Amino acid sequence: MNSLSPFFHPQGIAIVGASSHPEKLGYGVARNLLKSGYGGAVHLVNPKGGKIFEREMVKSIADIPDPVDLAVLVIPPKYAPATMHACGERGIKATILVSGGFRETGEEGAELENETLEVAREYGIRMIGPNCIGLIDTHLPLDTTFLPLDMPMAGQIAFISHSGAICDALIDWSKGQGFGFSHIISIGNQADVNETDLLPLVAEDEHTKVITLYLENVNDGERFIQNTREIVAEKPIIVLKTGRSQSGQRAAASHTGALAGADTAYTAAFEKAGVFRANTTEEIFDWARALAWSPLPQGGRVGVLSNAGGLCVVTADSLDHEELELADFAPETTRALKDFLVPAASTQNPIDMLAGATAKDYAKALRLLLADPNTDSVLVLVPPPPMYPTEEVADEIIPVIQQTKKPVLVVLVGSEHIEEASHRLQKAKIPEYRFPERATSALARLTERAEFLRGIETRVPTSTSPDLTDIRAALADSPSGSWLAPELTERLMSIYAIPTSPIKLAPSAEGASKIAEELGFPIAMKIASPDIPHKSDVDGILLNLASADEAVEGYEMLMKRVSSKNPRAKLEGVHLQKMIPAGQEVIVGAVRDPQFGALMMFGSGGVEVEGLKDVAFAIAPLSAKEAEKMITKTWAGKKLDGYRNLPAADKTALVDAFCKLSQLAHDLPEIAEIEINPLTVLKEGVVAVDVRVKMS
Amino acid sequence: MNSLSPFFHPQGIAIVGASSHPEKLGYGVARNLLKSGYGGAVHLVNPKGGKIFEREMVKSIADIPDPVDLAVLVIPPKYAPATMHACGERGIKATILVSGGFRETGEEGAELENETLEVAREYGIRMIGPNCIGLIDTHLPLDTTFLPLDMPMAGQIAFISHSGAICDALIDWSKGQGFGFSHIISIGNQADVNETDLLPLVAEDEHTKVITLYLENVNDGERFIQNTREIVAEKPIIVLKTGRSQSGQRAAASHTGALAGADTAYTAAFEKAGVFRANTTEEIFDWARALAWSPLPQGGRVGVLSNAGGLCVVTADSLDHEELELADFAPETTRALKDFLVPAASTQNPIDMLAGATAKDYAKALRLLLADPNTDSVLVLVPPPPMYPTEEVADEIIPVIQQTKKPVLVVLVGSEHIEEASHRLQKAKIPEYRFPERATSALARLTERAEFLRGIETRVPTSTSPDLTDIRAALADSPSGSWLAPELTERLMSIYAIPTSPIKLAPSAEGASKIAEELGFPIAMKIASPDIPHKSDVDGILLNLASADEAVEGYEMLMKRVSSKNPRAKLEGVHLQKMIPAGQEVIVGAVRDPQFGALMMFGSGGVEVEGLKDVAFAIAPLSAKEAEKMITKTWAGKKLDGYRNLPAADKTALVDAFCKLSQLAHDLPEIAEIEINPLTVLKEGVVAVDVRVKMS
Repeated sequence: MNSLSPFFHPQGIAIVGASSHPEKLGYGVARNLLKSGYGGAVHLVNPKGGKIFEREMVKSIADIPDPVDLAVLVIPPKYAPATMHACGERGIKATILVSGGFRETGEEGAELENETLEVAREYGIRMIGPNCIGLIDTHLPLDTTFLPLDMPMAGQIAFISHSGAICDALIDWSKGQGFGFSHIISIGNQADVNETDLLPLVAEDEHTKVITLYLENVNDGERFIQNTREIVAEKPIIVLKTGRSQSGQRAAASHTGALAGADTAYTAAFEKAGVFRANTTEEIFDWARALAWSPLPQGGRVGVLSNAGGLCVVTADSLDHEELELADFAPETTRALKDFLVPAASTQNPIDMLAGATAKDYAKALRLLLADPNTDSVLVLVPPPPMYPTEEVADEIIPVIQQTKKPVLVVLVGSEHIEEASHRLQKAKIPEYRFPERATSALARLTERAEFLRGIETRVPTSTSPDLTDIRAALADSPSGSWLAPELTERLMSIYAIPTSPIKLAPSAEGASKIAEELGFPIAMKIASPDIPHKSDVDGILLNLASADEAVEGYEMLMKRVSSKNPRAKLEGVHLQKMIPAGQEVIVGAVRDPQFGALMMFGSGGVEVEGLKDVAFAIAPLSAKEAEKMITKTWAGKKLDGYRNLPAADKTALVDAFCKLSQLAHDLPEIAEIEINPLTVLKEGVVAVDVRVKMS
Repeated sequence: MNSLSPFFHPQGIAIVGASSHPEKLGYGVARNLLKSGYGGAVHLVNPKGGKIFEREMVKSIADIPDPVDLAVLVIPPKYAPATMHACGERGIKATILVSGGFRETGEEGAELENETLEVAREYGIRMIGPNCIGLIDTHLPLDTTFLPLDMPMAGQIAFISHSGAICDALIDWSKGQGFGFSHIISIGNQADVNETDLLPLVAEDEHTKVITLYLENVNDGERFIQNTREIVAEKPIIVLKTGRSQSGQRAAASHTGALAGADTAYTAAFEKAGVFRANTTEEIFDWARALAWSPLPQGGRVGVLSNAGGLCVVTADSLDHEELELADFAPETTRALKDFLVPAASTQNPIDMLAGATAKDYAKALRLLLADPNTDSVLVLVPPPPMYPTEEVADEIIPVIQQTKKPVLVVLVGSEHIEEASHRLQKAKIPEYRFPERATSALARLTERAEFLRGIETRVPTSTSPDLTDIRAALADSPSGSWLAPELTERLMSIYAIPTSPIKLAPSAEGASKIAEELGFPIAMKIASPDIPHKSDVDGILLNLASADEAVEGYEMLMKRVSSKNPRAKLEGVHLQKMIPAGQEVIVGAVRDPQFGALMMFGSGGVEVEGLKDVAFAIAPLSAKEAEKMITKTWAGKKLDGYRNLPAADKTALVDAFCKLSQLAHDLPEIAEIEINPLTVLKEGVVAVDVRVKMS
């Protein structure tokens, strides 16, 4: 049995620190659990004994009768280790440590947290918290929180949160919005159990259709990606990840002591995982309601139906913003619409039936739009109609929406006059929004979700790992933080079959002349120094040297230049390389992210890469599809298809080499950074011209 | 007296087409006007006479007694011209044509609209509409709409709308949001009166603090900029402009027949005008409430106060997103906070007082934050407190907020449990929001507004117009759509004192050799052909020709190349130009926008300008400040300060030349497009290397 099961199906729950004082958290927890309708055994533990809610309290954990497999601990922090010990002795294997006063308060608290965790580990006890508000399961049902709020409505959205206060606020807010939750799980400091551990169990829950997360960090990035990738094949996941900004990180550090990772890596990780990343709290649930309640569309062609032209225009704009399109209706649809709408109505998409349209007109037109083969989904826009109550529209369209397999999202603009309509739609589990922009954003996620599921098999990495025994041994000799020697770099590229133009080190002018003859002309020459990573910064590159004599002259010129510009740099000689034919130069690279492993970059290379920022990121290892998607995001990638008099270049070879590089970066955590700048994409094939590797 | 005054201060109003049938619009208009509490005379006109609302109807416009200076026309469209005629004869100088069935329905309707307008013009009648819902003035008061809704609450926000349905929806929605309007004006097809005409009168209204607009187009762009620029010095303006997308334009065309301009020009025009552009309908009023109710901050340093860490983290992120900063509190503030908050509370910004904080703690901490000299504004974040009602926090902080000159915005997260607190804040005119992101967005606009007012004098264009008599005469000979001859282009640059490198046309190899000697070596040579705008596309450029002989060879080579690549191009010879010293190459240009005049562009030049999209836009003529702001938006502009081994270039000279170019583009509507690519920015000064001018 999974060690986390007692959090989801407890046989009996003990509240340690249950209290008869209404201002204490231990009172609130007891009240909520008893009120929740939880069907298993409930045991209240208080060292002084006594009675609350007409129940006897037991005086010690040892005295708790069977069945009990979950303990909620609401105790002063200093007693936490001893209490955990007592739980272990009593055979309780799952605990929720609600109390604060641990890692979030500083070093002393962190020590207490570690001590408590050690005791838990000793007994094989799983622990949620500390510094959390616990669990709500609306279907079991179960409520271990102390909040003076009624449970949220039962629903199909699970919410796992690093912040308890956000849970508090959402429980109240969701009621006003007319949607419910399946689970709410507040995990606080995550000393033991984190969101990644919980995800598979939440995903298994039959009531849960969508999983939402509020995250301040991800501690176990690679496992997070692995777990979420598996789950999203079945159920969508939406994340709000804070700490995007430096300020955010600072606040996160002072909040639950979390150290937030770099935001680029998070964005890339969520994309890799197939997880939706929301920008605001409202967005999470705008999207979640649609994903929980609506079927998925076959494509992005949207029919828009309204009695108000202005709303149609706003909607058309936001469809465009979300990269959805206005459906081109079949001629039959337009004809059928013309048959019953007033002549001044617009029967081209978006449909503006004008203010005189009846509730039945809405239903009739909606049926036509849904029957149209060119329509994948419909948005219905309803401001308060001038001549009758808005709920009449709701009543007419609800049965139509319940009978179709295409998603229909409704926009009700107003307040008092649309309230009743809004309730009726919510009750029928039809997503409804106050403004077109929010509905369109939700519809875009439904469309993306459908597209994602259609392309799910393209997620398998394209390259495989070669035998790494020998190169691993060789790499082990390179000191941490050093740049890998060119010979070893060359070997690395060769093992992964990434084409290079061999680079030879010439320690003298004479050697340069000899090696140049071997490689063939024209030749490029670059200064060789471990102290100069950016060679163009010191004019340390010469191109198109055409003869052995020029190689000798070039050698001397470079030495002179560099020793004047950077006299303290250690010079090893020059690197020689045959000149590459003309092609398109791009940059590809990888850096190791502490949370998520190798983070790949592609884009416009050259010295201005940091300024132009024409780059895209993704987490390794890449599938060909993922690599292509990244490449297409950048101008460097777009112009590979040819631009003006720039001929097209071999994108297939680029994708192949890039996937191999991503496999390399994934396979070898020994490498901290690897960058090919430029990688020249030729008419046929690619050449890694300048490869730099930094050891972890 | 302004001809539009009767729309704002009518002495007497006639409703032409008043009806006793409740399902008719003419009934609704009469009902609303009478119910509105309008204090002037109301005359109901119906050819059949009769009585409604216990008032006699007169049978014809001619019979209307004094006083009457405004007529609301609710009539079948075909009667519009005759009705307008009757109004003219009766001496009525202002009309609101509510009826639809005009330009928005097609050609026939457009003719009827023109005919009606002609009659109106004949009599000097001003007309709002057709196809509109009329006026609401909550302070006068006055309501000429037919909507079955009560008037909105009286407030300080004016709303002018191209869409009547949006007004309908907003009236209801605003009540739920707890804010009111001063004016709502629906202007429909704008056959006569448009938003630009109305703006000065709305701005004069003492009750109006913020002006908001829903626009589908702007017909008179230059006057719109002029009027709004004047108004924003006193009162802020917020615009939602739809038709951003192609789809949006299409929908606008089928809605009120408006032809939306290119969105880039709109964005640039709103920036020029100092108008806020909202992205969504909710955003307009999130911002408007703050601008109407809050004082402006002195700067962007924000204090954040909460009892919930998670909300603090979300807020810190969104402050960063909006380019606001977390204030660094003075040591006294932190000390004073520590004195009364629990030890585990975070006394660094953002302040997390933890869930046990009382309502009085909120007020006490807020006072400290407001007194801090390093704090310009405060956000207070309140989820439902666990132990007492949220409205207690509202009651404690309202007097503090009412006494300070710094803006305080409140975030209440929840629904039922925060409803009462929300009402109390609204009543006290304190902006409150459901989520931190929305409050932060509003606070950012307050901060921008303050910054805008501080820098308002920097809006004056930097360059002045030279004497244009001669050049205008010369330009008149260049045919529309043609490229201006290099000699004239040169003259144009010289008049505006934009430095160039003279270009000479050589019709023969011999001529090329002679001119090259005159200009001095090294020299650049480009093919001269009216049929080849992009010379590099046909390899039509040679650089660094070092002698008269090379000039001759070059001439022959170019002729051969071009006649093979583009045999049908008419060749005039070659253009010669002295080579420019090394510098940074940028592109500057202008295109004439049909709505807003000359639209200026600055950015990274070269052949890839369209791909890299490293460009910024603004409306001419530019002030030095505006030019600098544009330049700094791009990477091309940023690297002018120097980057790696690229030396800094003369940004001052660039700003000067760019302002002059903007003055030129503004002065000469004869020019459709002008582009300098590249403009080389040297260590000192700039050189316009390649200037192309297309005639309108």
